[in-house]
Amino acid sequence: MANPAVAPPRIFNCARAQPKIRPSLKGRVKGVCVSSLPAGPEIERLIQLLAKLPGLGPRSARRAALVLLKKREALLEPLGTAMRDAAAAIKTCETCGNLDTVSPCSLCRDGRRDPHVLCVVEDVADLWALERAGVFRGRYHVLGGALSALDGITPERLNTASLIARVDEGVDEVILAMNATVEGQTTAHYLMDALTPSGVKVTRLAHGVPVGGELDYLDEGTLSAAFRARRPL
Amino acid sequence: MANPAVAPPRIFNCARAQPKIRPSLKGRVKGVCVSSLPAGPEIERLIQLLAKLPGLGPRSARRAALVLLKKREALLEPLGTAMRDAAAAIKTCETCGNLDTVSPCSLCRDGRRDPHVLCVVEDVADLWALERAGVFRGRYHVLGGALSALDGITPERLNTASLIARVDEGVDEVILAMNATVEGQTTAHYLMDALTPSGVKVTRLAHGVPVGGELDYLDEGTLSAAFRARRPL
Repeated sequence: MANPAVAPPRIFNCARAQPKIRPSLKGRVKGVCVSSLPAGPEIERLIQLLAKLPGLGPRSARRAALVLLKKREALLEPLGTAMRDAAAAIKTCETCGNLDTVSPCSLCRDGRRDPHVLCVVEDVADLWALERAGVFRGRYHVLGGALSALDGITPERLNTASLIARVDEGVDEVILAMNATVEGQTTAHYLMDALTPSGVKVTRLAHGVPVGGELDYLDEGTLSAAFRARRPL
Repeated sequence: MANPAVAPPRIFNCARAQPKIRPSLKGRVKGVCVSSLPAGPEIERLIQLLAKLPGLGPRSARRAALVLLKKREALLEPLGTAMRDAAAAIKTCETCGNLDTVSPCSLCRDGRRDPHVLCVVEDVADLWALERAGVFRGRYHVLGGALSALDGITPERLNTASLIARVDEGVDEVILAMNATVEGQTTAHYLMDALTPSGVKVTRLAHGVPVGGELDYLDEGTLSAAFRARRPL
């Protein structure tokens, strides 16, 4: 019988567990960590929110909060202001789905970029990665995710309709820069089919040995793709 | 001759390098990554500040910023508010040096805690760690660091004078809970000497095998300390 009243006390992670505990139980449930910090509610809230950032768990969120509190003028206040400014300024580009402080975004406004080549990416992070590499001088289209039956992400939930509309306005080539994952490749196949009627040239990124990679450490899928796509020297 | 005009272009880490580049050079220096992101200055500033948090490098700061921007209402705005609230509310306890939203802090105000036993720690993080363990029901004293000749941290820069004053006001035992590092142990020895005239009982934490630790993985210093401090069963 799993009666919670007689269940042995469990110690679990305070920073994550705290929001689930009813306030009326605070300080009364023995053996359960109810108050993780001898600090004010403002500090606990700061830690709880920091712990939601990727790369920060509850422990590193505490460490980050302490650094913030110690460097109040140099870091805490500027970061709070930067977050407020970013929250007020950020816009989703109405053309491509990129995040920027203007809409259309600075990439869509840039007259030096070729409007006849579209690079389709899953996410803004992918767009940033390609821009860092500096390999592409056309325009982007951010889908906002990849097709996934498990997560219920259908074509209607992605920016596919706007992609097809943009292609119809005069695009010579669509580069599908999806992730080399099952979801990414499913999305690429779906887009390939969806774009066929428009007659546009559709390409995808090459798969193969990453630069600096050692064959010994690569999986069979990558090696097989690299073999099949081998090129004459 | 190290003439910067003819030096080969170097690629270095954009997020960290950016603040060092003169604005007039932006977009003109070839081969140097001057604009890491195709996003507005508010977003770049947010990333730069996030990268200063412990545990977040430039790459994970970008990832954290993207998550923040995507979850504007659920995370970015609350976190900005939490930082502003914390910056406004945080105080250093005038008695023990702890960080809290009230001064004296909630631990110093807690009448259930024994005021005759003082636990001296280097940092607020150590105080939080001991409170999480829930092993101590007395009062704390936060030194604000450890003695370090290399970093120029002398006893005058730590809260040692206030510690000695507190001890003189009627304390039965001082527990030195320094880190088991060279600096921590130097500080403990200094405090031991400084507290001798007051005649107070001074103790320190035990050194030994950490709970869950395997002998095979422990260093000689720990094993030697554990052997010397062995106890009858």
